[in-house]
Amino acid sequence: MEQLKQAIRDRGKVLSSNVLKVDTFLNHQVDVNLMAAVGQEFAHLFKNEKITKVLTIESSGIAPSFMAASTLGTPLIFARKKKSLTMNDNVFVSKVYSFTKQETNEITVSKDFLLPGDSVLIIDDFLANGQAALGLVDIVKQAGAKVAGIGIVIEKSFQDGRSKLEEAGYRVESLARVHSLENGQVTFVDELISNNL
Amino acid sequence: MEQLKQAIRDRGKVLSSNVLKVDTFLNHQVDVNLMAAVGQEFAHLFKNEKITKVLTIESSGIAPSFMAASTLGTPLIFARKKKSLTMNDNVFVSKVYSFTKQETNEITVSKDFLLPGDSVLIIDDFLANGQAALGLVDIVKQAGAKVAGIGIVIEKSFQDGRSKLEEAGYRVESLARVHSLENGQVTFVDELISNNL
Repeated sequence: MEQLKQAIRDRGKVLSSNVLKVDTFLNHQVDVNLMAAVGQEFAHLFKNEKITKVLTIESSGIAPSFMAASTLGTPLIFARKKKSLTMNDNVFVSKVYSFTKQETNEITVSKDFLLPGDSVLIIDDFLANGQAALGLVDIVKQAGAKVAGIGIVIEKSFQDGRSKLEEAGYRVESLARVHSLENGQVTFVDELISNNL
Repeated sequence: MEQLKQAIRDRGKVLSSNVLKVDTFLNHQVDVNLMAAVGQEFAHLFKNEKITKVLTIESSGIAPSFMAASTLGTPLIFARKKKSLTMNDNVFVSKVYSFTKQETNEITVSKDFLLPGDSVLIIDDFLANGQAALGLVDIVKQAGAKVAGIGIVIEKSFQDGRSKLEEAGYRVESLARVHSLENGQVTFVDELISNNL
């Protein structure tokens, strides 16, 4: 998605060969027009999958998922990283290990909102090693529902998240695939292909 | 806002005389059409305030703020309850005491995104004792910016948040004002007025 790649080039900041900071438009300040376009693109890509629910994870997944759910005409569910005060024990739980924080967190979704027969589009802001996406997949499977696909805003293609998800049989659509952050430069996968590198 | 009050009546759950659970449409599962209407209503109410930024707090503030920022043509900023890994020390911080959790948390906003001269619309999902809203107000003031107003999805009018904010001189617009949750029943402030109770 060219508009997104341009935002990453112009407004992203490469902090290291592994860390891309996009808090100017995605995960702290939100460019709502860009995120609306991102959501519509997800809706377009998965329009034939008879999606009944869009599932993401708080907080940064909410903005890029909002217009996807709106366009597909489905509810949006965001998994909780921390159980809320009004949440009871009627929840699906999955453990998600964070390599960057080196800790395991539980994500939870109320059993009221995912049902057998649901066809679920999972959306997240980043795909790196795939742990968060696999946690969401696990929750959808606990519900007896179907994972219709996984939509990612920014994929770090130099990590193995995509291959893990594809090996598990899931369709992954990433709107920007970052090949490398070496030397403070962002290069995208499709630039490599178009340049025959 | 009648559509919101109807959702509270039909899909909210009164857990106690103090706790209203709305995770069917607001803070876990999101009714994106209703939240889009909520956001547009905020944009309408504050359309003459020359808003330059919409500020909310993760996670439940993001969905009702999304369309407000989109309609007003401004960025949306969500304050972080936990500093993210890519956040440096260039942040405004405010302490927010939670009466329900009986703990103090710090909320943070990068100094890059709030500037003197900004006219800021603060939006939050609930207003009870006003601590979260006052924390956001504090951050706007630290930035030297102006609080143009405060938009609340659901106000618990039997708590003192509104009076604190109004005494401090701020305009508060709540789309649903809950007078009472006694006896498992939701009654709204404007129902009292229209019934002359």
